[in-house]
Amino acid sequence: MDTAPVLSTIAVLGGTGKEGKGLAYRWAKAGYRILIGSRNPEKARAAALEVLGLLGDKVFVEGTTNTRAAELAEIVVLAVPYAAHRETLESVSEALQGKLLVDVTVPLVPPKVTKVQMPPAGSAAQEAHAILGQNVQVTSAFQNISHELLFHPEPIECDVLVTGTSKEARQETLKLVVAAGLTGWDAGPIENSVVIEGLTSVLININRESGSTNAGIKITGTHSGSTHYIAL
Amino acid sequence: MDTAPVLSTIAVLGGTGKEGKGLAYRWAKAGYRILIGSRNPEKARAAALEVLGLLGDKVFVEGTTNTRAAELAEIVVLAVPYAAHRETLESVSEALQGKLLVDVTVPLVPPKVTKVQMPPAGSAAQEAHAILGQNVQVTSAFQNISHELLFHPEPIECDVLVTGTSKEARQETLKLVVAAGLTGWDAGPIENSVVIEGLTSVLININRESGSTNAGIKITGTHSGSTHYIAL
Repeated sequence: MDTAPVLSTIAVLGGTGKEGKGLAYRWAKAGYRILIGSRNPEKARAAALEVLGLLGDKVFVEGTTNTRAAELAEIVVLAVPYAAHRETLESVSEALQGKLLVDVTVPLVPPKVTKVQMPPAGSAAQEAHAILGQNVQVTSAFQNISHELLFHPEPIECDVLVTGTSKEARQETLKLVVAAGLTGWDAGPIENSVVIEGLTSVLININRESGSTNAGIKITGTHSGSTHYIAL
Repeated sequence: MDTAPVLSTIAVLGGTGKEGKGLAYRWAKAGYRILIGSRNPEKARAAALEVLGLLGDKVFVEGTTNTRAAELAEIVVLAVPYAAHRETLESVSEALQGKLLVDVTVPLVPPKVTKVQMPPAGSAAQEAHAILGQNVQVTSAFQNISHELLFHPEPIECDVLVTGTSKEARQETLKLVVAAGLTGWDAGPIENSVVIEGLTSVLININRESGSTNAGIKITGTHSGSTHYIAL
C-alpha cells in the first residue's frame, strides 16, 4: 500500500519567467504536481521540459494555458510581470474561486525601480484580493528572493516574509516556503504586503550601492536562533 | 594642538523615551555632543544624568526643552511617540530650517500594532518633510532596532536601513548609524520609508509568533559578506 502523502497540485501562472520557473523547479523537486501556465501554452510546455530535464521523469511538471492551469490546481501562484497582473487575474478569476492565490508579483514601475511605488490598493496583493473577491484567500510571498538563485539546488541565504488574508492561508503558504528549501515567517495581514513588495526596491538599491546582485534579508534575534522553520 | 575631530551636536527630541535615550547613550559614547530634548526640561535633565551616570563626565550630555535642543544642534533626531509627531515638528520647524532631521518615529496605530497603517503622506518621514518644507533634509532610520538593546554596550544583530530626501542626507545618517555601533544601508529615497517604518509591524508580528522580543533583520548576499560598514 502506498502511504506517501499526496501533495497538492500547484499552478504557476507566468511560470515561463525566471521567478516562476525557479519556484516550479523547487516544488516539483519536493514532490508537488506542477502545472506551468502561460498565455502561450507552447512556451509553457518548453518551460516544463526544461524543469523535467533537470529533475528527471519522476516528477510531475506540465505546461498549459494560465486558465487551464488555474482550473486544475488547488493552489495558484501568480508570477507574471506587474504589467500583466490585472489582466491575468481577471482571466482566471472564476477558476480561482474557493482556492488560495500566492501572489509573487512586485509592482515595480520602470525606470525608477529603486523607488517604492505601490498601486492605489496599497500593494499588488491587495489589488489581487480586490479583483478576486472575498471567496479567494490571497497571500504575498517570495518577492525578495533573487530568481537567479531559485533555479539551482543550492541553499539561499534569504528569508521569505509571508502576508495574507488569513492565518490559515499564511500557514499554507509557509509550507510552500519550506518545501522550496527556504525559511519563512508569518509577517501578518495582507495590509503588510507593502513592506514585502517594497523591500524589493530597497534591495535593488542596496545591490546597486554595494555592487552585488543577490542582496536579501534574514530575520535575527528570535529565540530559535537565526532561522525558524515551520513544520510541514 | 588638539587635532581630535570636532563632532556635531545632536539633539534627540523625545530623548527621555527608551529609543531616544538609547541613541543618546551610544552617540555620547562615540564622542558626539548630545542635547536631550523633552517638552518637560526637568525630565530631559534627569535622562541626561542617567546617561552621564553610565558614561562618566568625559562625555557631553545635557537636557533641555525640545525647542532649545533643536536650536542649538546641527543634527536633530526625532524620537517621540507617533501621537506627538506633528505637534513636536511644528514646534521646532523654525529651528530646523537648513538642518538635517533624522526621523526615528514609527507610525503605529494601537491596538493593531501588527498591521501596517501609514499616514496619508505615505510614511511618518514623508509627513515630517511635508511639515518642515524643502529647506530641511529628512532621513528615516533606526525604527527596527529594539530599544531594549540600544541602552547597553553589547553589539546588536540588526541592520539599519536609511532612506532620505538626498544621498548626502543618507550618507550623513549612515555615519550616525556606524557611530552607534550598527551596520547601515542606503535604502533609497524618502518614498521608501514605508518599508522601514512598516517593517516594525512585521517584526512585532514575528516576535509574537516566535515568542521573542528582539526580532530584527540583517542584509545578506552582498559581496562584502553579511555586513557592510560605511566609512566615517
